Amino acid sequence: MARVVVEVMPKAEILDPQGQAIVGALPRLGFAGISDVRQGKRFELDVADDVSDAELEQIAESLLANTVIEEWKVVRLP
Amino acid sequence: MARVVVEVMPKAEILDPQGQAIVGALPRLGFAGISDVRQGKRFELDVADDVSDAELEQIAESLLANTVIEEWKVVRLP
Repeated sequence: MARVVVEVMPKAEILDPQGQAIVGALPRLGFAGISDVRQGKRFELDVADDVSDAELEQIAESLLANTVIEEWKVVRLP
Repeated sequence: MARVVVEVMPKAEILDPQGQAIVGALPRLGFAGISDVRQGKRFELDVADDVSDAELEQIAESLLANTVIEEWKVVRLP
């Protein structure tokens, strides 16, 4: 059994209103020095050992990320 | 300027309906061998160099995570 993380983030050229809301809120809450925030998703998968990297890429692309507006990365945890 | 990632995941004892929906959908889509999925959030912050780790922990705890149901981790990217 392997633990796999899929990180899904909005593409750089896509506006991220959730992240912008956080950037706007931080100074009001007394936190300075944060110039940008982007919010994405993080999936943790418990994966059988015979699941290939190619299958994981396919799962991330077809089910976990919206490829029009998001980029994703599959990371096998050690 | 540093890049900081905050990973926010539902606590282990908290039901994660989004993750369960994904686990349920995978076999129908032809993917076998995924026994569990948990969905959380991932924040990427652009942070001035004088922002301390303690401040980042405070930001994550007060603004990015719901501490009742979520755990979080602050990671400075190299």
